[in-house]
Amino acid sequence: MKRIAILGSTGSIGRSALAVVDAHRDRLSVAALAAGENAELLAGQAAKYRPALVAMATSAAIDRLRPSLPAGVTVAGSGREGLVAVATAPDVDIVLCASSGTDGLEAVLAAIEHRKTIALANKEVLVMAGGIVTEAARRHGARILPVDSEHNALHQCLHGRAVSDVRRLILTASGGPFRGRTSSELLDVSAEEALRHPTWRMGRKITIDSATLMNKGLEVIEAHWLFGVRADQIEVLIHPQSVVHSMVELTDGSIIAQLGVTDMQLPIQYAFSYPERWAAPLPPLDLATAGRLDFDVPDTSAFPCLRLAYRALEAERSLPVVLNAANEVVVARFLEGRVGFPSIAHVIEETMNAHQPAEVTSLASVRSVDQWAREYSQELARRVELKV
Amino acid sequence: MKRIAILGSTGSIGRSALAVVDAHRDRLSVAALAAGENAELLAGQAAKYRPALVAMATSAAIDRLRPSLPAGVTVAGSGREGLVAVATAPDVDIVLCASSGTDGLEAVLAAIEHRKTIALANKEVLVMAGGIVTEAARRHGARILPVDSEHNALHQCLHGRAVSDVRRLILTASGGPFRGRTSSELLDVSAEEALRHPTWRMGRKITIDSATLMNKGLEVIEAHWLFGVRADQIEVLIHPQSVVHSMVELTDGSIIAQLGVTDMQLPIQYAFSYPERWAAPLPPLDLATAGRLDFDVPDTSAFPCLRLAYRALEAERSLPVVLNAANEVVVARFLEGRVGFPSIAHVIEETMNAHQPAEVTSLASVRSVDQWAREYSQELARRVELKV
Repeated sequence: MKRIAILGSTGSIGRSALAVVDAHRDRLSVAALAAGENAELLAGQAAKYRPALVAMATSAAIDRLRPSLPAGVTVAGSGREGLVAVATAPDVDIVLCASSGTDGLEAVLAAIEHRKTIALANKEVLVMAGGIVTEAARRHGARILPVDSEHNALHQCLHGRAVSDVRRLILTASGGPFRGRTSSELLDVSAEEALRHPTWRMGRKITIDSATLMNKGLEVIEAHWLFGVRADQIEVLIHPQSVVHSMVELTDGSIIAQLGVTDMQLPIQYAFSYPERWAAPLPPLDLATAGRLDFDVPDTSAFPCLRLAYRALEAERSLPVVLNAANEVVVARFLEGRVGFPSIAHVIEETMNAHQPAEVTSLASVRSVDQWAREYSQELARRVELKV
Repeated sequence: MKRIAILGSTGSIGRSALAVVDAHRDRLSVAALAAGENAELLAGQAAKYRPALVAMATSAAIDRLRPSLPAGVTVAGSGREGLVAVATAPDVDIVLCASSGTDGLEAVLAAIEHRKTIALANKEVLVMAGGIVTEAARRHGARILPVDSEHNALHQCLHGRAVSDVRRLILTASGGPFRGRTSSELLDVSAEEALRHPTWRMGRKITIDSATLMNKGLEVIEAHWLFGVRADQIEVLIHPQSVVHSMVELTDGSIIAQLGVTDMQLPIQYAFSYPERWAAPLPPLDLATAGRLDFDVPDTSAFPCLRLAYRALEAERSLPVVLNAANEVVVARFLEGRVGFPSIAHVIEETMNAHQPAEVTSLASVRSVDQWAREYSQELARRVELKV
């Protein structure tokens, strides 16, 4: 029996993870759950799965949770402290980090120090602190299993192959809802249009990141840290059907690809079952019915965020922190309808240009760069606000 | 330095294998070569690679070879005896079996008994004697590495995964030159048309097998023996571009695929370098330029040979021998323009219907069934000869 802790249990990934638990109650148990603000849903999850520990983002949320919390479930705390308590609970084997944004960083590091297996669905953790996190995992002998569909695919394709046998990692990208449009055709697109992702159902922030291709850019940075390959060994290929989840090109030119249905239960179950494979409660991929798979190069002039991510990865270590923080800030503004689509890349690039790159070797230095980039990009975003 | 013996060095696979040797002269040497009738080409190969041993199919061919054979190259003999001598030469590590038809069977078994690694490009060996050959390989601890593009792909996809993790093997098929035609549109096709394969350059017999889908049927039987899966776990998927060379569906529904350019040097080099990977002297696959991959189910009413192969695999052990022998006979007749395309499947099916299935546990019993099937199908083929 593997005992699971979930950071972000009420979000899209968290709910898929609990569906995986439902399909394998003989193999998986829920030891601890952390959620953001959705006290009602967490209460229901606590009643069903009876975790020993729960945590929420704020004490206000915890106050709403308490009246409906079953007996025997302890509240671990709120904020980052609550996340750390859930991630380091003594009876936990695997910590699924599916909290959004950068809040999970301390919890992931603490879980690594406690030698938990990390099922990582949050890409900001590696984008901000890839060096710190992977070095800690190496030092403590903790395994990091990627849950992001693309990196999970790469993990499956590599299947223990040495990085010296790898020529390139090829990350596939659906291209998002605006694939094929030119930059001038993207001037006036709304958040509502950007939220209509063609193949994946995901949270709002990551769906916007898919529309700008920043999601793929963050994945390039994540792949660098997870698999130890250089930026110039990571390629992005547009693949609208999202059937091929990613590929590895080996030194002899052979390409190993992973294909599957677009349901996050698959990579989550892979991380929970690893190194075993369990039957999945999903209909298999039918390639004859799918019929056709297309591939194309990405258009980085219409979608400059991808180019910015490569630039951040190739440059000094603090630049990915800046990229990520500015992106979080400006995407939130875009979702509120306060800035236009082209301002997303513009604000990120200007914030990167204004940044003095520095080494980030501690969480404190990461948080400090992150804070600076948020303030700077907030100010920039204010200046480019749309008149309503 | 790995020392290679090639059975069938003057054929399409043999010449590709020598091109692989050319690219890796620091890692590969040629210890022995066996060819059919092409004395001129074998003499040139012997002069270039200086093998210790050579063999040819007939003594007449050897007589043509001797005058131009360099000093120090010994003639091992002719026929099956020559093949066995080449395959068991003491200074050989890897035996590439690329002789056509069933002649290589004794040589492969002898090489296995001498614990050589077998690089197997000849599918008849496993179709006729899969049980005998794989049991011998298990008993002697000899490794069989498939060179056939599809099985090589499956070997790469599996990469040591347990067969218990496998739900299905998915063999891709280009569909050949007649893909999409109905059975009535195939009544009058000529050998010349059937030899125009859309994606692979291969020998004549295998190219006709591709046009009838018998090649894929033989591969289904081969896959059963190589990977230890049941007939109902092996699926064939039409994929006209031949970019995806085959796939493995794992128990959780995830599919691992191998993709590459259509050049036999890749699987040959894989078998020679295994378990290492070496850089290949070929341009990499460019999926963005390929642009599009299609998939469809095979049409077994227009191409009944595929159905016949499944029937042979599911039935008693001698039926694949009958299938293979009758196919060799009738394809030779079709290449001579003496029988029509639909007669290929017809003669095979009638020969199978007339056969009394029996266990085949020795090469003698295999040869006996093979002999019966050849005679029976020859007689059938005579009866359906075209009037000219």
